[in-house]
Amino acid sequence: MIPKSHPRATSLLIREKLVEGFDNGLVAKEGLIAYGRGETFDYLLGEKTTKNAKKAIKAAALALILAKSPVISVNGNIAALCAKEIVQLARIVDAKIEVNLFYSDKKRKQNIARLLKKKGAKEILGLDLKSSRRISDLDSPRRVVDKDGIYAADTVLVPLEDGDRTLALKKAGKQVITFDLNPLSRTAQTADITMVDNVVRGLKDLIKECKKLEKNPENIQFNNKRNLSEAINEIRKNLSRRARYA
Amino acid sequence: MIPKSHPRATSLLIREKLVEGFDNGLVAKEGLIAYGRGETFDYLLGEKTTKNAKKAIKAAALALILAKSPVISVNGNIAALCAKEIVQLARIVDAKIEVNLFYSDKKRKQNIARLLKKKGAKEILGLDLKSSRRISDLDSPRRVVDKDGIYAADTVLVPLEDGDRTLALKKAGKQVITFDLNPLSRTAQTADITMVDNVVRGLKDLIKECKKLEKNPENIQFNNKRNLSEAINEIRKNLSRRARYA
Repeated sequence: MIPKSHPRATSLLIREKLVEGFDNGLVAKEGLIAYGRGETFDYLLGEKTTKNAKKAIKAAALALILAKSPVISVNGNIAALCAKEIVQLARIVDAKIEVNLFYSDKKRKQNIARLLKKKGAKEILGLDLKSSRRISDLDSPRRVVDKDGIYAADTVLVPLEDGDRTLALKKAGKQVITFDLNPLSRTAQTADITMVDNVVRGLKDLIKECKKLEKNPENIQFNNKRNLSEAINEIRKNLSRRARYA
Repeated sequence: MIPKSHPRATSLLIREKLVEGFDNGLVAKEGLIAYGRGETFDYLLGEKTTKNAKKAIKAAALALILAKSPVISVNGNIAALCAKEIVQLARIVDAKIEVNLFYSDKKRKQNIARLLKKKGAKEILGLDLKSSRRISDLDSPRRVVDKDGIYAADTVLVPLEDGDRTLALKKAGKQVITFDLNPLSRTAQTADITMVDNVVRGLKDLIKECKKLEKNPENIQFNNKRNLSEAINEIRKNLSRRARYA
């Protein structure tokens, strides 16, 4: 029970959603910790979608619309927090959905797939061992991907991704789009488009942008490294406002 | 299984220790997330004990030695990561140990007490309902403290504490010493002495300092707000090294 008077009650309530996802067999224990890491960056960013995040979201929307064979990679955390939005986005940009876990677990994969189907997804890739392929340069179980999904994709949206895998996906020639609250992470720095935003906020915005751009396509100038620098400076600015010795 | 080639393997291995603590019924699910929050600050601080942390550790050591009735407040995370060190420290500074949880749970309390006793603690407070007292100005279950422990203490070491409780302990007239990796948190800002350090490293250093100061007491100048500003600036410096757009 979180007391309502607690000044971080909202953040604690989102936290409870992830805990619920854990209780429902979607989220790994390590996923709870990883989420906490993101929470801190969100806190340092002011718990709002920043201007640079909006820029990246727009660029990501355009990239997803223009992609020939986009795939959305889903892990336990993103399923627990945004299952409905994942299915919506996949429908709008005509993307496939593939379950891919860092801490591999057959039962958890099935739970995630079941939830996504409940939210309206028709097909979930990544569960059938017969269609599994390996991407090179990767130690972890995450190197196993679906031949009809990530293996064949030109563009992969990897929300909340591990750095090793982002690198491997880049080496395999994919365009990589990611949500990562840590603008310094290897994933953030390696991806083509990094949305430094909380997925709970950012994915809703991404869906809106996709709908908008689908009707009125725009030409977008986007430089990921420059945009990440802006995100880092945002954190520094927020810190300096509080660092002054009074 | 964490691949050894992963560049964050060390951090991931400490994470596993907490997960183990979870499996052994010491750590709350929310504790896993809270730990992740700290991980990010540790990462931003360079995953090392900084100069300002060392200053605070020295000040904390002196305060604990000089205290008349010091108490160490123990929750699931600190028990999972540092049970042995908690017992060592309590012995050196003649402090009582009290189990006090944010997410209260009788079974978890007992598990924590059992582990501390296994590590050599003679008495663990906070388990006997008959000796419970309430500190005012606090909603959460954490307001329940032991009449022979925190209730009667002049100095309380609260590693990994909640902001509400730190405020309540201050209002109750206690000297509060804390470990908090977030130099901006209410706990960090409210406590008398805040060690901005990972408990896994910092508690070992605190024990060393206590042993040293016990033999050769020193006069120490310490200003917590100024020291916290230094911690914040450390993070800003680390961020700016990487923020430059190349």
